[in-house]
Amino acid sequence: MKLREAILNRDLDVVKDLLVKDPNSIEDKTGGVWLPFLAASLGDLEIVRYIVEYSRASFNETDELNRNVLHYGVESGNISVVRYLVERVGMSPVSGDINLVTPYEIAYENKNKEILTYFEEVCGAPYEQMYHNPIRTGMHPDPSIICVGDDFYMVNSSFIFFPCIPISHSKDLIHWKVIGHAITNPEWAYLDELEGGRGYWAPDISYYEGKYYITATYRLNDTGTVYRKQMVVSSDKPEGPYCEPVFLDEDGIDPSIFTDDDGRRYMLLNRGARIFEISKDGKKQLSEATLLYYGHQKRAPEGSHLLKKDGWYYLFQAEGGTGLGHRISVARSKELFGVYTPCPYNPIMRQQDEKGAIKRCGHGKPVKTPNGEWYMVYLCGRQLEGEYSLLGRETALDPITWTADGWPLVNNLEGPSVLQKLPNLTPYIPEPESDDFKNGILSSLWVSQRVPEENAYTFGNGYLKIQGSKKDLDTTESRNILLRRQQDFHFTFEVTVGDINLNIGQDYGLTCYYDENTYLKYGLFETKEGLFLQVVEHIDEETKISLSTKVTKGEYSLRIVTEGLKRSFYYQSIVDQEETNWHSLGQLDRVYYLCDEGINRGKRFTGAMVGMYAHAGENSSLTGEFKDIVYQGMDR
Amino acid sequence: MKLREAILNRDLDVVKDLLVKDPNSIEDKTGGVWLPFLAASLGDLEIVRYIVEYSRASFNETDELNRNVLHYGVESGNISVVRYLVERVGMSPVSGDINLVTPYEIAYENKNKEILTYFEEVCGAPYEQMYHNPIRTGMHPDPSIICVGDDFYMVNSSFIFFPCIPISHSKDLIHWKVIGHAITNPEWAYLDELEGGRGYWAPDISYYEGKYYITATYRLNDTGTVYRKQMVVSSDKPEGPYCEPVFLDEDGIDPSIFTDDDGRRYMLLNRGARIFEISKDGKKQLSEATLLYYGHQKRAPEGSHLLKKDGWYYLFQAEGGTGLGHRISVARSKELFGVYTPCPYNPIMRQQDEKGAIKRCGHGKPVKTPNGEWYMVYLCGRQLEGEYSLLGRETALDPITWTADGWPLVNNLEGPSVLQKLPNLTPYIPEPESDDFKNGILSSLWVSQRVPEENAYTFGNGYLKIQGSKKDLDTTESRNILLRRQQDFHFTFEVTVGDINLNIGQDYGLTCYYDENTYLKYGLFETKEGLFLQVVEHIDEETKISLSTKVTKGEYSLRIVTEGLKRSFYYQSIVDQEETNWHSLGQLDRVYYLCDEGINRGKRFTGAMVGMYAHAGENSSLTGEFKDIVYQGMDR
Repeated sequence: MKLREAILNRDLDVVKDLLVKDPNSIEDKTGGVWLPFLAASLGDLEIVRYIVEYSRASFNETDELNRNVLHYGVESGNISVVRYLVERVGMSPVSGDINLVTPYEIAYENKNKEILTYFEEVCGAPYEQMYHNPIRTGMHPDPSIICVGDDFYMVNSSFIFFPCIPISHSKDLIHWKVIGHAITNPEWAYLDELEGGRGYWAPDISYYEGKYYITATYRLNDTGTVYRKQMVVSSDKPEGPYCEPVFLDEDGIDPSIFTDDDGRRYMLLNRGARIFEISKDGKKQLSEATLLYYGHQKRAPEGSHLLKKDGWYYLFQAEGGTGLGHRISVARSKELFGVYTPCPYNPIMRQQDEKGAIKRCGHGKPVKTPNGEWYMVYLCGRQLEGEYSLLGRETALDPITWTADGWPLVNNLEGPSVLQKLPNLTPYIPEPESDDFKNGILSSLWVSQRVPEENAYTFGNGYLKIQGSKKDLDTTESRNILLRRQQDFHFTFEVTVGDINLNIGQDYGLTCYYDENTYLKYGLFETKEGLFLQVVEHIDEETKISLSTKVTKGEYSLRIVTEGLKRSFYYQSIVDQEETNWHSLGQLDRVYYLCDEGINRGKRFTGAMVGMYAHAGENSSLTGEFKDIVYQGMDR
Repeated sequence: MKLREAILNRDLDVVKDLLVKDPNSIEDKTGGVWLPFLAASLGDLEIVRYIVEYSRASFNETDELNRNVLHYGVESGNISVVRYLVERVGMSPVSGDINLVTPYEIAYENKNKEILTYFEEVCGAPYEQMYHNPIRTGMHPDPSIICVGDDFYMVNSSFIFFPCIPISHSKDLIHWKVIGHAITNPEWAYLDELEGGRGYWAPDISYYEGKYYITATYRLNDTGTVYRKQMVVSSDKPEGPYCEPVFLDEDGIDPSIFTDDDGRRYMLLNRGARIFEISKDGKKQLSEATLLYYGHQKRAPEGSHLLKKDGWYYLFQAEGGTGLGHRISVARSKELFGVYTPCPYNPIMRQQDEKGAIKRCGHGKPVKTPNGEWYMVYLCGRQLEGEYSLLGRETALDPITWTADGWPLVNNLEGPSVLQKLPNLTPYIPEPESDDFKNGILSSLWVSQRVPEENAYTFGNGYLKIQGSKKDLDTTESRNILLRRQQDFHFTFEVTVGDINLNIGQDYGLTCYYDENTYLKYGLFETKEGLFLQVVEHIDEETKISLSTKVTKGEYSLRIVTEGLKRSFYYQSIVDQEETNWHSLGQLDRVYYLCDEGINRGKRFTGAMVGMYAHAGENSSLTGEFKDIVYQGMDR
């Protein structure tokens, strides 16, 4: 405690004396914050210098929020301490804590002009002209991107959600809006029998002679002898509609289409980067697949993309599996068919920091902007408590620079950026997504698990009406669940459910949903004992009523407040269109099962969803009514 | 087992059929070797291709010896399988197993000309023109190097061994011979009171205006208030004699001397890279130390070396601590005093492969050869059973290439090489080290733990005579132990001990030695019950007789056979100069305590030694006699 006092008293001589007598005392944490951080936060340059240059402290140390010495130094407001930490200790103004808070942001919040001016010089842009990763939060895995003219288009995996494979549009690489899907015709989706997590994996979008091509792996259940096919669609317009899918009978995942300078077209897919020629229209396989290059790291090599640039064929690959080992590597050759030489700087994208908030980085595709800048979109995952990928795999963006000898480096090999300078593109803010039930409009944020029944969703009296499913949510035969991505660790979801008549055994309401093996329902349940408002959890094979209260028939507003793994449930009775008080139904402390790591069953790498359902039962019908749907993200 | 049979039968159709039905069966190891390795060793290209391109196997897999698919593929002798594995799967002919055996070596042993010709093309040199790392086995940590004319000089840490800081000479960077020491005058060593592992740490050798300079940290015990000083000596000749040491009162470790183009001279030392100006003769500190740059990784930044090249000041640093986290990073600046920018390719040397045989790589210094090639010497450690650094920290060598944008890459960022192309230098084989007791010559391989007493070592009748120490080996007051580095995991050490008279309580013989806390003695012990040949182990505070047999007085040859952690003890009576049969005294299965990781006490990063001792006791004298000393390494 003496050393802590000496630091608090800013008495350098006493600090020196105590550290000489007991060098280990610098590591003492009994009194609170780590002493070097305390010194930095107090802003005494001489004490900070002495600790850095003469004590045993190592400055790769971070606190429990993964804040480093610069986070603390910025709090001091002392520019000389900040400069010393940046220039001599080598700390970065854009290093993120577990909540993605950077020293730059702290200076911004604290309105410290001197430090902000300095950080602008170091980072090359004022704070307002920086963006945060991930650029697309919630389930947006396996991004593929193209630039056509001034427009960027991105596709992501959609698994068994329908419509299939969202196509998003942007002009600035940061703000995106879903403009269509690769498969919208229910008869072309083939999702009915598939387990959660299967379906359409890792799509690629490309452009060739006026047409947009999307290819993806169609991943079946493991019951037959064919597990994977490659799906191809095309359209004159990026938003579609796209043609009827063609399925190529080649095993593998992560297909992408590459057109060589001579106009011959190829499909790449794993394992490693295998290649075969396809017809100009993308519908036929013209040659046997052959291996271009297996990969640099050689574990689970996939996600191949070819880029022809300056006489080189650059082969980008995802490796390491889509968990914490994920990475992107690159190899190149002067000939399409190799031999490929791996980049000495591999992996060119990887989260090396075990404590970094943005993990699982890999599976990306490069894109050149109209201004000649290069970027890579890639998937990443953030894990709550370092363990739970509640938001699934998200999409991040980082600049690519090319070395003098022609190798691409993503974010200068620094791993995923938390805060990054905006691309040199005109900011573009698309119209916000919104529902308009009065005019029968569901925003493009909504998807269904599997193809919904005909007339599953109708509108009337300002309500969205969901046709009740004969089967409950715990089977692959459940239908009409309407969902949107959970995009924040902290959010509120609020819906008003209409006053409808239920038979015994029927229920409808809200759901926090992962797949048929793991979800919770929060709704009105008609039982022999009467009408109840209940929270029912389904985890693997087990279903249990976790929260319950008897209620009178009527219209209710239901609210789920989410704070990480915690879910709190509130309700409010609507009487004569007047709102009464909010009541608490209770809370669940750890809904750990709503993420990839939740249970060990099936294919789990989608992401948590939230939405509405109606369960009619086998021999009965029911139409759930919903209005005033509000998802309010609170992460940032 | 069916799949194994199908592979053994080379039946591709059955292999395909079985893998489609049960994809996981490829991972089956119940029948022996991993199936993809089995396929490779059989040399059927089509089956190998199918497994690589369609099965779930990942080819970063290695067996328990850390052999990969190419080790197995080379055994097949099939050049097409080997080419496929190198060119398409990306395997390296120079990847080493835990015994440093590479596919290249297997092809060489198997005399497979086709594969050897191909590997020569891939590696750029025939097998005979490759060298193995480590280039200097056994305790050779913290290497520093210079090239003056056609001659290379290297210094390494010597801790409390005397003479202090060996200076080695080479002309080809591979073959080295000790030519002198920085401190040979007993009165200038100041080692008497130091615990094992302290003393002279991490020296640097430099050359300036016709003089050789060696600086090192003098590391004291932790009992006072000064723990570290910087020692400097100089000489006109690389082999010395060097002047009386000067001690600079600046805290820190790993000093190195840098002379700028303007002739001003500086000392660098940790933490981070601090710098201060020194006088031209290196004997005076002219300025206060100031921090150039803390480091890239920021854990335990040390081992700084500055290099001026092409207008840049390159700052090389060791980081991560001298254990498994060790690495080398580099930063550069156009101005000596910074600001320094870290290399985007950091760490430029690091063992990323957890299963790699050569670990703990870091603390290096670059050197330019007379042919303009660049190399780095750096320390590394090999761990028996993945745990025990029995040979201490050794010296490895790898080429540096400079990127187009002027950054140095060590071994193309591939970590330590196991097998590497020889430098473009004329091979140089120095005279082998040898003792000649008849002419009173002890080879330069021998050192003493602390400064030996005057006349500690004499010669007569072909014997080396060691003056008995008043104190036993378990105190810092023990003297005259004569030791050499253990340089192999497998070796035999044999010595004939003369027939001398002992008093009760006296003993002499051989020792496997780490420091005063951990060693074993194998010698003749006079007790009240008579004369015994014994193995006595000393571990931390405890001493025990582990093996013992009563013997008659006479001359004996003693032999210690070392296989990893196992030590077997043999003896032979010499009667009338005739040898009788060898007898076994027994064995110790796990002398785990003879390495850094052995016990948790003091500074443990030297290395195991082997040698001779004589223990006279407090009020008595004794002169041990030794001859025919043979150390026979068997690792390679």
